[in-house]
Amino acid sequence: MAGEAASALGLSMAVLAQHPDDAACSVAAEVVVGSPFVEADLRALCERCGVVTFDHDQVDLDIVTGLTAEGYVLRPGAATLEFAVDKAHMRTELDRAGVPVPAYAVLDNGPDAAKSVGRFAQEHGWPVMLKAARGGYDGKGVWPVADQNEVAEVLSRVEGSVVVEELVTLDAELAVMVARRPSGSAAAWPAVETAQVGGVCREVLVPGRLPSDVVEAATGLGQKVAEIAGAVGVMAIELFWSEGRLLVNEVATRPHNSGHWTIEGAVTSQFENHVRAVLDLPLGSTAPQHPQVASVNVFGGAEGESPADRLARGLAVEGAHVHLYGKDPRPGRKLGHVTVCGDDPELVRARAWSAARALGTPVPAGLDVPSERSS
Amino acid sequence: MAGEAASALGLSMAVLAQHPDDAACSVAAEVVVGSPFVEADLRALCERCGVVTFDHDQVDLDIVTGLTAEGYVLRPGAATLEFAVDKAHMRTELDRAGVPVPAYAVLDNGPDAAKSVGRFAQEHGWPVMLKAARGGYDGKGVWPVADQNEVAEVLSRVEGSVVVEELVTLDAELAVMVARRPSGSAAAWPAVETAQVGGVCREVLVPGRLPSDVVEAATGLGQKVAEIAGAVGVMAIELFWSEGRLLVNEVATRPHNSGHWTIEGAVTSQFENHVRAVLDLPLGSTAPQHPQVASVNVFGGAEGESPADRLARGLAVEGAHVHLYGKDPRPGRKLGHVTVCGDDPELVRARAWSAARALGTPVPAGLDVPSERSS
Repeated sequence: MAGEAASALGLSMAVLAQHPDDAACSVAAEVVVGSPFVEADLRALCERCGVVTFDHDQVDLDIVTGLTAEGYVLRPGAATLEFAVDKAHMRTELDRAGVPVPAYAVLDNGPDAAKSVGRFAQEHGWPVMLKAARGGYDGKGVWPVADQNEVAEVLSRVEGSVVVEELVTLDAELAVMVARRPSGSAAAWPAVETAQVGGVCREVLVPGRLPSDVVEAATGLGQKVAEIAGAVGVMAIELFWSEGRLLVNEVATRPHNSGHWTIEGAVTSQFENHVRAVLDLPLGSTAPQHPQVASVNVFGGAEGESPADRLARGLAVEGAHVHLYGKDPRPGRKLGHVTVCGDDPELVRARAWSAARALGTPVPAGLDVPSERSS
Repeated sequence: MAGEAASALGLSMAVLAQHPDDAACSVAAEVVVGSPFVEADLRALCERCGVVTFDHDQVDLDIVTGLTAEGYVLRPGAATLEFAVDKAHMRTELDRAGVPVPAYAVLDNGPDAAKSVGRFAQEHGWPVMLKAARGGYDGKGVWPVADQNEVAEVLSRVEGSVVVEELVTLDAELAVMVARRPSGSAAAWPAVETAQVGGVCREVLVPGRLPSDVVEAATGLGQKVAEIAGAVGVMAIELFWSEGRLLVNEVATRPHNSGHWTIEGAVTSQFENHVRAVLDLPLGSTAPQHPQVASVNVFGGAEGESPADRLARGLAVEGAHVHLYGKDPRPGRKLGHVTVCGDDPELVRARAWSAARALGTPVPAGLDVPSERSS
């Protein structure tokens, strides 16, 4: 999607991809086949580009630091990427800067780790959350732990540092997208409400159902986090709304699923502003274009059915903007999303779900999804 | 831009391009290097594609007919393409179907042609317009002729049939974009006002300054023309508003400059609906999303300066959606466009011109362009 935005601006994009038939390659002028974890591969990309940026957080910080020292321009840089790569670093830095986060402790995953988890739970209560500091994604690397008996088994799955956190009562989840230039000038889209099932985002509602002062406070918190992290490009900040408190949960230092609604829903999309920001070009307006926007993620069926085979059914739903990512279906893999804009929050949500279902998206247990009839 | 729309739908596009570095190639999964006038080249594209469509009208109808007979799917087909390829055919067919067109006659460009032009002028007055039936584009292949003395020289420049037409008094020019599926189901965007200088479109205003009943009549006429032509995909119909009459001037059987405003200005862009239509997928809404839209074409400077070098200046204009096509600058070549949406017709037009100028677009003589201050 960043490639589509770059193309519209007349820019030429090269991508580093594991396989030449990866989805992003079809909108790239050049493809370097390789891995971002192999220094020579990332250098080969750098040699072709004025500016290199990222569409995921799985980055080797040492390689990025080294290439930056050689004079290549990688945005964001390693100091920002570390906020997304390392949850222990992110928690510590945000906490130190006064940003509200869940109660947490960072543990070396050594012989005393299980005892340290127990001490943390004595103070904050069971269950607790255990998180691998590095390598987590879409609910992976995160485990709720009911009591001391479960701790050792979970710790055995983790390599490297562990973050133990209080289990936060979730009244709602929010996300803020911020675009920020190297100079520090920044623009935030308004905070949105997200719904996660099993750690995976299923829908985004704009502005969502929370009071406007909560939305504004969340937006301000997102901007503060982007500044602390020294973001360049787009940064995503995911927050909990819990018993009257806003707490920062996760961050991503790139365009994010929570911001896909901006393609049709805002004056400027997160992808265009990401491209503008990393090239140090003036940012576009982040204002919403519609009073209500709903964006629902598209998944394949349990039997590996592809939404691409049901495209006509999705497009038949009134107002449905269908985006498919050209990815092979795998259970639980996001294959696209649908956005609907309008005036009525119930109607846009119902239509977005109607289109997502028409594309074959299973309705997740634990989410109150509008019935077909209400669309 | 059609490639960007196809990518968003998760579709894979191959292009037939003269050069592997042509702009469209950077958003294509596959590139066939060749010419649409070489049957083997177009067949090579057909072999890679479920459906083949066109982004220009320079097509060999015999090749298209032959490949269609072989079972390849080319949309639109030769019968529709002929309306864009051959002005004599277009005029004759529309006239026969009762669509208002300027007074015209089709002439063989033989020894008696000059005399026939004279007879036409006796009835309709000097000056007249002479048009090559085939091969014209952006004001090329069209000549105003003041009197009989000029006729022979103009005819000597034309190969093949000639259309002679009355010189129409232009009170305004309009354009209608229509998307139409193979089944005949169609959707039109509302007619827009265009401004041409030297046969080249400089700006598009939506809805423009004509009374709403004229806009509606023009839209209806566009839909009728698309039906007569059997359009599949998007078709553009350009009209004259002249002394209280709407007259069809030109048609194009593809997405068109007059419809670029739809990318941000309408619920569904002409490019997305073109892709949907040629794949026989349900069409998206053609409703405008904003009360006022202005779209201004971007040209390079007289010294060959490129707008790409002035991108930051263009993007600094509030509300400017900048599209650059990645083309090499040549005098008079369209290199991009800028669209601005809003509520105030003067403000959106002023901002669009401000951004186009910031990108280096010379202000054309003969067009009343808002001053920098008014933006």
